[in-house]
Amino acid sequence: MRPPRRLVIIGTGLIGTSIGLAARVGGVDVHLFDRNPEHLRQAEQMGAGTAEPRDFATVASDLVPVDLVVIAVPPSAVPSVAAQALRAFPEATVTDVSSVKTTVVSRLRDAGVDLRRFVPGHPMAGREISGPSAATADLFYGRPWLLTPTLEADPVRLGLVADWVGLTGAVVRHMPAELHDQAVALTSHTPQLVASAMAAQLQHAPEQLLGVAGQGLRDVIRIAASDPQLWADIVTSNAAEVAPVLQSVAAELLHVAQQLTAAASVESRQLAVANLVGSGQVGCARLPAKHGGVGPAFVAVPVEVADTPGALGEVFATAGRAGINLEDVRIEHTVGRLTAIAHLYVLPEVVPELAEVMHEKGWRVLE
Amino acid sequence: MRPPRRLVIIGTGLIGTSIGLAARVGGVDVHLFDRNPEHLRQAEQMGAGTAEPRDFATVASDLVPVDLVVIAVPPSAVPSVAAQALRAFPEATVTDVSSVKTTVVSRLRDAGVDLRRFVPGHPMAGREISGPSAATADLFYGRPWLLTPTLEADPVRLGLVADWVGLTGAVVRHMPAELHDQAVALTSHTPQLVASAMAAQLQHAPEQLLGVAGQGLRDVIRIAASDPQLWADIVTSNAAEVAPVLQSVAAELLHVAQQLTAAASVESRQLAVANLVGSGQVGCARLPAKHGGVGPAFVAVPVEVADTPGALGEVFATAGRAGINLEDVRIEHTVGRLTAIAHLYVLPEVVPELAEVMHEKGWRVLE
Repeated sequence: MRPPRRLVIIGTGLIGTSIGLAARVGGVDVHLFDRNPEHLRQAEQMGAGTAEPRDFATVASDLVPVDLVVIAVPPSAVPSVAAQALRAFPEATVTDVSSVKTTVVSRLRDAGVDLRRFVPGHPMAGREISGPSAATADLFYGRPWLLTPTLEADPVRLGLVADWVGLTGAVVRHMPAELHDQAVALTSHTPQLVASAMAAQLQHAPEQLLGVAGQGLRDVIRIAASDPQLWADIVTSNAAEVAPVLQSVAAELLHVAQQLTAAASVESRQLAVANLVGSGQVGCARLPAKHGGVGPAFVAVPVEVADTPGALGEVFATAGRAGINLEDVRIEHTVGRLTAIAHLYVLPEVVPELAEVMHEKGWRVLE
Repeated sequence: MRPPRRLVIIGTGLIGTSIGLAARVGGVDVHLFDRNPEHLRQAEQMGAGTAEPRDFATVASDLVPVDLVVIAVPPSAVPSVAAQALRAFPEATVTDVSSVKTTVVSRLRDAGVDLRRFVPGHPMAGREISGPSAATADLFYGRPWLLTPTLEADPVRLGLVADWVGLTGAVVRHMPAELHDQAVALTSHTPQLVASAMAAQLQHAPEQLLGVAGQGLRDVIRIAASDPQLWADIVTSNAAEVAPVLQSVAAELLHVAQQLTAAASVESRQLAVANLVGSGQVGCARLPAKHGGVGPAFVAVPVEVADTPGALGEVFATAGRAGINLEDVRIEHTVGRLTAIAHLYVLPEVVPELAEVMHEKGWRVLE
């Protein structure tokens, strides 16, 4: 893998600035462009590269040779910026990082742009906070970075982008653009809207009703804290793929709601709910387990811990000394007590041993 | 607090059997009834009490004096069983544990049942698995147990139930039945259906699409793994409260889906999505923080750990030795590497110190 010598980043939000930081760690010469001077200044101050205050088209010739141009602007702006960048940097490879891929390519193609130097990409990394100040050099570490090369893409250019992605710590995966857009509509865009629609119901609910909320609701709506403008741009750019999934979710919910309000028999109401929850159960079980493989379901062992520094650490250290690998952990804060319940997820066969070890060391195991 | 001397439990599923186990820990004489002889046998074998193979109405007089009868049957069966229990045990206090409260009371009232000895209750505890074999004596520990006493309830009986609930380790909260049913419709029943409807979309999706799924989707659909029959009974018993919330969620999603398919302008599409995500953001922020109070938002510090026994323990022990209280933890398994990222949630002001401590000890802090 050879790092690009000179990298141009257009757009210094969370992703663009994080890419700059990752490139600087690798010693790459990075030049930053953004129409928002405040973002540009912040990105430079964070060490993501040299801020270029003028329009990239006007200074492009001064920067030659540029190996790679990364376009990190909102999805709807990518086609026009990519077309300009391909013109302004006639030797460079150009890639983007937007979360929607087919519309970018089809708009460039419709505009008659030569796509040999363009490699569409999408790092599967994000945060519930945005802007350059949220950027980190490690944002992409261990995460998938999808590339959706077109048929006309130059294989050498594709290799250059794949190498560069590897240098950020991300893991390259190739897939067709159509498949990518379907995949993110199903696994990212629609879940975001569903979580938001559920969380929106809490907006005007009386305070008393919210006090009853447990971990289930919190998990369902966690991602609803995300940025509305960014998601507006993402979802509308993938409208054709998101709409049918969203419609299907809405139709399922509406069907149950209608059964619950109509003069339906108890049996047909129960059947409607059981069918929906049953389908969800099957769908849930289809998600691959960790490390990309299909693995066994983990089982939780709940252990009561004091809600003080070190308490969790002792529990986990005890498991570690016994040679037990914790696969996941969830902390549940109890009501009316200064204790928490740590749900320790392990392989099913390890449960008795873990419970035994915890019990021996004086921890209260809740089952 | 004085424990009841003799307790009758009707229904030995997850909740009924767990109540029996908790009561036996407290030395209470427990008698178990269930129409399902297999459940009854399992509950007795687990130590939840004495299995009574005959109908409770026929043996009630042999068991006198009974202090408390707990009805732990599915919501739709509660009214008839409660009416029978009040007749069969004419001196006992009777309570139930169903997750819907107004329909139980109104059906008993419609049947002319005297409600002075009946105290409706709802332990906010459950698991994604069901049946007596999933029962534990600690199921209720640190969790809210809501009581929704009627106006005609005898205060002494109410006190007896509240004392008993306290003995299980749960925390008693009183609220009107109407408020309870609205609260669980909003914070439990509708989120369940929403998660199920999202998960149902994965049922027939091509394998390739699912490989892209990240933590966001996993959180949204975690509770979709729950039991369809149990939820069918719960939701239909609270139909009047669930239907409007469900309809509202469906309407929000349908509105966005329509904007995405209609010949709407990009601006009106973006507005529809931004409005929904924005409302969700506001709703999200309204949930109370841990320990029942409204607290600060916690910030995650991601630390890379080897996916081996002890690695997590060392990270947490390091935080503990530095006097840093971890508020929550999420483990994210990376792709293509045998490492995981532990997101350590702490108070915002503690972030620099935690990052420093982890870095000093040689852990890779990802931001």
